[in-house]
Amino acid sequence: MSDDIRPILVVGSVALDTVHTPTEVASEVLGGGASYFCVAGSLFAPIQLVAVVGDDFPAAHRALLESRNIDLGGLEVLKGKTFRWTARYSGIRLEQRETLDTQLNVFAGFHPALPAAYRSSRVIFLSNIQPELQLEVLDQVEEADFVACDTIKLWLDTAHAGLERVFRRVDCVIINDEEAVQFTGQRFLPSAAHVILSYGPRAVIIKRGENGSLLFTQDRVFFAPAHPLETVRDPTGAGDAFAGGLLGAVARAGHSGDDVLRRGMLYGSVLGSLAVEDFSVRRIVQADTREIERRLSTLVDMISLNGSRAQ
Amino acid sequence: MSDDIRPILVVGSVALDTVHTPTEVASEVLGGGASYFCVAGSLFAPIQLVAVVGDDFPAAHRALLESRNIDLGGLEVLKGKTFRWTARYSGIRLEQRETLDTQLNVFAGFHPALPAAYRSSRVIFLSNIQPELQLEVLDQVEEADFVACDTIKLWLDTAHAGLERVFRRVDCVIINDEEAVQFTGQRFLPSAAHVILSYGPRAVIIKRGENGSLLFTQDRVFFAPAHPLETVRDPTGAGDAFAGGLLGAVARAGHSGDDVLRRGMLYGSVLGSLAVEDFSVRRIVQADTREIERRLSTLVDMISLNGSRAQ
Repeated sequence: MSDDIRPILVVGSVALDTVHTPTEVASEVLGGGASYFCVAGSLFAPIQLVAVVGDDFPAAHRALLESRNIDLGGLEVLKGKTFRWTARYSGIRLEQRETLDTQLNVFAGFHPALPAAYRSSRVIFLSNIQPELQLEVLDQVEEADFVACDTIKLWLDTAHAGLERVFRRVDCVIINDEEAVQFTGQRFLPSAAHVILSYGPRAVIIKRGENGSLLFTQDRVFFAPAHPLETVRDPTGAGDAFAGGLLGAVARAGHSGDDVLRRGMLYGSVLGSLAVEDFSVRRIVQADTREIERRLSTLVDMISLNGSRAQ
Repeated sequence: MSDDIRPILVVGSVALDTVHTPTEVASEVLGGGASYFCVAGSLFAPIQLVAVVGDDFPAAHRALLESRNIDLGGLEVLKGKTFRWTARYSGIRLEQRETLDTQLNVFAGFHPALPAAYRSSRVIFLSNIQPELQLEVLDQVEEADFVACDTIKLWLDTAHAGLERVFRRVDCVIINDEEAVQFTGQRFLPSAAHVILSYGPRAVIIKRGENGSLLFTQDRVFFAPAHPLETVRDPTGAGDAFAGGLLGAVARAGHSGDDVLRRGMLYGSVLGSLAVEDFSVRRIVQADTREIERRLSTLVDMISLNGSRAQ
């Protein structure tokens, strides 16, 4: 990684996940949107993490993050228990998820406090925490080059107005297809995307899981296919890993032109595909630059009109 | 259209469809897979149609087909009623279909009989009729350059062995995602595609409706996005219109290299997007070359990594 790549700031959750699939269980593994984002993004740029954990957060998880060029100066450790989340996946490709238990613990009182050094970050990811907390982050940063936010259905139902305020202040909204339809009341994704664009962001990314993702800007659309899967072991974190690849590509390029965003979408697909191949961030941790570039070249070929594959 | 483009032979159903949506009904409109294929494909190449209708088949429908460079020398007219099909669509984007009634009528005894002039066709589409009838067609043709087949779930359940025999004798299998999973017993589409490739076809196309379609060849995958929809009035026939665009592109190019197949997938998406915007083939009939090329250029831009749109 080149020394002059500036860090990405991410604010979100770090959790201990327990995940059930029809054949396996993983207990209290490293989870939370910010964790997936960090581990994926750190393949591209240094990361500044703002989150909170309890004093029970395992040293091994902390060591893993520290080993990956992730600055933990903004990781608050509070007396008490770390955020815990338990879910069960089912379906032929584990496409159905049921949340069995959510214990916010120390996350319940979380208010992001940015270390002074983080306030000048130029590339920022607001993971899917409450819109009010996303706004608190924006109030603490100086003018950034590229701010992206993600959200979840819960905030559409309970914090619609807050979400609108976030959308007015970011460069890129990342949202899944059902959420985009629900938020805008539009049946079709292009209309839904343009309603969100009307709040002000330059780009809207609509995630469709194994069906890939769409990037809408004012007058263009880009489609990033999902990397062809041969296995899914744990679908958790695919969206945050996707964001890590995307913002990683932006940070590495030093700008967010259409060419960077489009290629960044493909890096996002690559990181999402890695995320689901094992529990927690295990598979992402195993990937090196060569493997990432190999998967990227498969995706580039999947959208190439050439009669033969570029070597 | 250039005079030296050789015709495409299509064998399939011509029907009178009655389609209900939550807000509209269309009664006894021109339907059947072969009709959609013909009207779409005739934008690219002359068409030879082999099908059967009853003596009640409306003159206006016949005139429409004749007006489009579609040879009806192989359209048998039998005493009796034309195949009738009635369905109801529901869901936010009309994505759910319920068949209310199927009356095979004269189609029940259909056995394709190819006029002598059709037997030397080089590009052939076997629409989703019974595998045994698809095989009867193959027994009547000389060596072709490119034969593609489609199928439906019914034949997976009732004619699995026949379908395998068809797959062994075609160049391209077109199938939807659920059917591919069911036919092969594979959970993931790449594995499913490779099982079908092992029967011998050079290409397997997996259709995913509004999620686009995938082209698998031995060592490559291409993803064709669906054209961004702003409306759906009647989803019937999208798959056959897709095939019309794809085989039309092959016929026009005079070969089926990867470059032609990949671009042909995009033409397929264009024709599929037109098909769903109105009942029957109405919207396809309205389209001219300029509109087709405009939609194609949108799709090409949707998979372009360039920072700005090619003019």
